[in-house]
Amino acid sequence: MRPIGHVRSPHVKHTDVPKGLGAKHVAEGKIVVEPEYEQGLTDIEGMSHLFIIWAFSELEGFSLLAHPPSSERSHGVFATRSPRRPNPIGLTVVQLLAREGNVLHVRGLDMLDGTSVLDIKPYLSSVPPKELRRGWLDEAEARQGSAS
Amino acid sequence: MRPIGHVRSPHVKHTDVPKGLGAKHVAEGKIVVEPEYEQGLTDIEGMSHLFIIWAFSELEGFSLLAHPPSSERSHGVFATRSPRRPNPIGLTVVQLLAREGNVLHVRGLDMLDGTSVLDIKPYLSSVPPKELRRGWLDEAEARQGSAS
Repeated sequence: MRPIGHVRSPHVKHTDVPKGLGAKHVAEGKIVVEPEYEQGLTDIEGMSHLFIIWAFSELEGFSLLAHPPSSERSHGVFATRSPRRPNPIGLTVVQLLAREGNVLHVRGLDMLDGTSVLDIKPYLSSVPPKELRRGWLDEAEARQGSAS
Repeated sequence: MRPIGHVRSPHVKHTDVPKGLGAKHVAEGKIVVEPEYEQGLTDIEGMSHLFIIWAFSELEGFSLLAHPPSSERSHGVFATRSPRRPNPIGLTVVQLLAREGNVLHVRGLDMLDGTSVLDIKPYLSSVPPKELRRGWLDEAEARQGSAS
C-alpha cells in the first residue's frame, strides 16, 4: 500500500472532529493527489460524491469491541467506525466541490490534516433510505429522542 | 494489512461477474470472518447494509486510465471501479441477510470466490439520490438510452 495523496483538513487534532449522535461532517478541505497520479483523476469532476479510502495515522493496535461516542454500550468493531480496527483503514464519503489539477476541493471531511489517502472511488449508487437499518445506532438515536 | 476473512461467492472467474451498463449485483454468498475476529461482529446483525473492503487477488500493476465495460471511452482510474489501481483495494456494498457466528450471509457480491476481506464497516447513511451525479456513467447511460 502506497499513499496516493493526502488530506488537507481543518481538523488538526482528534477533538476537532465532530463525534457522537447527530454529528455532522461538513468540514471543507482538499484531497491533494500526488502529481504522478493526476491523470487518474480524469473525468472525476463529473462525480458529485466520492469514496475516500484512507489510513489511520496513529497505529495503536485494535480492539474487537468498540465504545462509540454515540452509544452507551460497546459494539463489535466491524459494526462501528472505530479507528482501532484490525486493518487501520478509514472510509469517508465526501462531496466533490471542484477539481483543480491534482487537487480535489471537497466537503464532508472527518479525517485529520495530513491523513494519507490510499484510494479514491466514485460513489455510484445509494441504498434507498427506506431500506436502510442501522441497528444499535438507530436504537441509540431513539433513546436520545425519547429522553429529550 | 492482514485478511480478516474471505468471500464465498458464486463468481469463480472474472467473466462470471456482471459488468457493463445496467449490470446488477445480486449474487448471494458469505463473508467468512476468521474465528479470532468473530467478537468484532457483535451487533452487526442489526445493520441492513455493510461496506466490504477487500483486496484484488490478481496484482498486475495499475493504469491511470481505465476502460470500463460501461463506456466507449477511457476515464481516470479514480473515476472508475477498475481493479488496476495504485492500491489494489476493492469496495462493495452488500445487504446483510443473516449472521451465523463468524459467517455473514450477504447479497450483492461482485468479487470472486476466495477474495481476501480487509475490513467490514456499517453503511450508516446514503447520499440522497437527487443529489447524486455520476458524470461519465450518467452520460454513457443516456447514450445507451437514446440508442435503444
